[in-house]
Amino acid sequence: LNRRLAEFGTTIFAEMSALAVRTGAINLGQGFPDTDGPDEVREAAVRALRDGRGNQYPPGPGVPELRAAVAEHQARVYGLSYDPDREVLVTAGATEAIAASLLALVEPGDEVIALEPYYDSYAASIALAGGTRVPVTLRPRDGRFVLDLDELRDAVTPRTRLLLLNTPHNPTGTVLTREELAAIAELAVERDLLVVTDEVYEHLVFTDETTPAHLPLASFPGMRERTVTIGSAGKTFSFTGWKVGWVTSTPELVTAVRSAKQYLTFVASGPFQYAVAEALALPESYFTGVREDLRAKRDLLSAGLTAAGFEVYRPQGTYFITTDIRPLGDDRSHGGDGFAFCRALPERAGVVAIPNAVFYDHREAGAPFVRFAFCKRTEVLANAVERLKAL
Amino acid sequence: LNRRLAEFGTTIFAEMSALAVRTGAINLGQGFPDTDGPDEVREAAVRALRDGRGNQYPPGPGVPELRAAVAEHQARVYGLSYDPDREVLVTAGATEAIAASLLALVEPGDEVIALEPYYDSYAASIALAGGTRVPVTLRPRDGRFVLDLDELRDAVTPRTRLLLLNTPHNPTGTVLTREELAAIAELAVERDLLVVTDEVYEHLVFTDETTPAHLPLASFPGMRERTVTIGSAGKTFSFTGWKVGWVTSTPELVTAVRSAKQYLTFVASGPFQYAVAEALALPESYFTGVREDLRAKRDLLSAGLTAAGFEVYRPQGTYFITTDIRPLGDDRSHGGDGFAFCRALPERAGVVAIPNAVFYDHREAGAPFVRFAFCKRTEVLANAVERLKAL
Ligand SMILES: CSCCC(=O)C(=O)O
Ligand SMILES: CSCCC(=O)C(=O)O
Repeated sequence: LNRRLAEFGTTIFAEMSALAVRTGAINLGQGFPDTDGPDEVREAAVRALRDGRGNQYPPGPGVPELRAAVAEHQARVYGLSYDPDREVLVTAGATEAIAASLLALVEPGDEVIALEPYYDSYAASIALAGGTRVPVTLRPRDGRFVLDLDELRDAVTPRTRLLLLNTPHNPTGTVLTREELAAIAELAVERDLLVVTDEVYEHLVFTDETTPAHLPLASFPGMRERTVTIGSAGKTFSFTGWKVGWVTSTPELVTAVRSAKQYLTFVASGPFQYAVAEALALPESYFTGVREDLRAKRDLLSAGLTAAGFEVYRPQGTYFITTDIRPLGDDRSHGGDGFAFCRALPERAGVVAIPNAVFYDHREAGAPFVRFAFCKRTEVLANAVERLKAL
Repeated sequence: LNRRLAEFGTTIFAEMSALAVRTGAINLGQGFPDTDGPDEVREAAVRALRDGRGNQYPPGPGVPELRAAVAEHQARVYGLSYDPDREVLVTAGATEAIAASLLALVEPGDEVIALEPYYDSYAASIALAGGTRVPVTLRPRDGRFVLDLDELRDAVTPRTRLLLLNTPHNPTGTVLTREELAAIAELAVERDLLVVTDEVYEHLVFTDETTPAHLPLASFPGMRERTVTIGSAGKTFSFTGWKVGWVTSTPELVTAVRSAKQYLTFVASGPFQYAVAEALALPESYFTGVREDLRAKRDLLSAGLTAAGFEVYRPQGTYFITTDIRPLGDDRSHGGDGFAFCRALPERAGVVAIPNAVFYDHREAGAPFVRFAFCKRTEVLANAVERLKAL
């Protein structure tokens, strides 16, 4: 195995999903729903298959119907205008979009700033590109993981090539505020940085007094022309196995990303591209419904985890809750070591969770945090809560 | 755009497919059938979709049903034994398998030997891995593109990390003989080389007195343990848009490839994995039928191209015919420049073909060769022949 990849064994998701299968534990590890998305979207895929749409290689940039639907969605929801022919690229989910963006835009030796904790493919993609990862840590404060803008500013050096952002943020559930995004945008313009922003949880934001609806970074002044935005159908439409994602950016940046992408998979997900094009045109009530359903699940699992003795960081978005296990007490919290806790949890309580430490370069900073996914049926969550309370 | 990718603009397939769409020409460029595969395979995908199999992330290595089917296929057809749990990895088509294998196994500075002309993603994947490409050219002799074993032997240096093979060979249609494969195997053992072998056209071999059925490189002495074999459903089952491929190798090599693969797409093609598992168990008559159908199409297009004035290299496998355009005469053959010829052909004759030069490092060596795909309906091929005769 290549030295660049030496530190990246098996993704934690594969490891923990295998553990769930082996032990029969309730899997609150990886972020996938246990209920498929709308019947009409699934039937749109069946129609595409039977009509012979997408059964052979789709065009490299994606089928025109999906590119048009992505552009239309960005315009309708955010007022952002993208040319479907030159500014939209369909990918094999967000993971390929991230890999292709970094392979295309990072030169060996370039520094890439990423918010820590980060989805594990970020680190691997930076390494594959030969770049150097510069983590800026979100720190727990008043029940939320917060970005320190001074720390971000200080992390920028003459060798910084790009900022790799993520909002809503996995695993912490933080949604960056308008002020934070504006400051990031100013910094990117001032230091002339590219930004790759992973916004796959854009529709999973639990808006209230302090949390506005999702704000795309590309909508801030000066950002449209320097931002590669990554979206995905998996999380919004509950078909994570279809792997349909996309990139929106300028023609130049889309062309660069496509240059790498075309050699990673060439194309993907033929018939599903047509189904997702239809899904993106679902009425607003669909998106509201998903959000409200998940909000209720977040509340259920948050309350249950609190009752079970965890300190809960109530997420503003995504389908993950980060907890601190230390209040459980030393014998139950494995001395605050989330790794040991998660390895033992399936046997001890019949539940699988993810140790946030794997998303940190500074593993100690992440040690006591453990992530639970709440994109599961209510009775499954209730059952998991009962098990965790019995811990 | 990253310097490593600077020489790789748009793949020729994207360029030529776009040209076909724009001009309405008959597309004999990229290798995809114009007729979908068996109804029962398509309906197996419909069942998976409706039963909720694969609609959420499949396991990282692929669904167990498909891994078992791949292993079973290798055992039944070639007598090769692979453990479905540790020696099979499902990928987003062969392209991802190639990219992941090279990213996993090649260190910056390593040399990778590839048969020239080569499928364009080989060069890009070697470049992404930071490797150095060492082409060994197949040379036209007596109507076939032939590997010079001495040249191959001379290409190996102490820095050679792996051989990247391809048989049946795209674009030339050459099927390596038992003697050639045995010599390659001996060389690999002697020099302790890894081999990555792309055998996606394994079922598209037109056997006769001089061409045996496909022989996997991994079946030669000493090769099972040093060979990563790449297969794919797209070509065999005529669903190229589904992008289901796989790798078979030792546990160590499969683990290495998976380490890279999991960060390229994570997983792909959920429901299609189940359909392909069923497809691999189709009776022998299916495979024979595909082969005989394609043999007739090869013969039709070969005869037509000969009649139109091309020199034809009659392929032993794949769905491509390589021709030499020089016999057409200078004004019609653009002075033997395949690039100029292919750029003009859609307007001049309403046909799209691929200039083999793009698959060469030594572009002049490939200049006069042009590739036509024959995986199209008989009437489409007949129509294309009429147009080319009128040239
Ligand atoms: C391919 S895993 C994508 C992210 C996710 O689902 C998770 O963090 O659990
Ligand atoms: C993704 S293109 C794969 C190879 C092929 O079909 C071709 O060479 O035309």
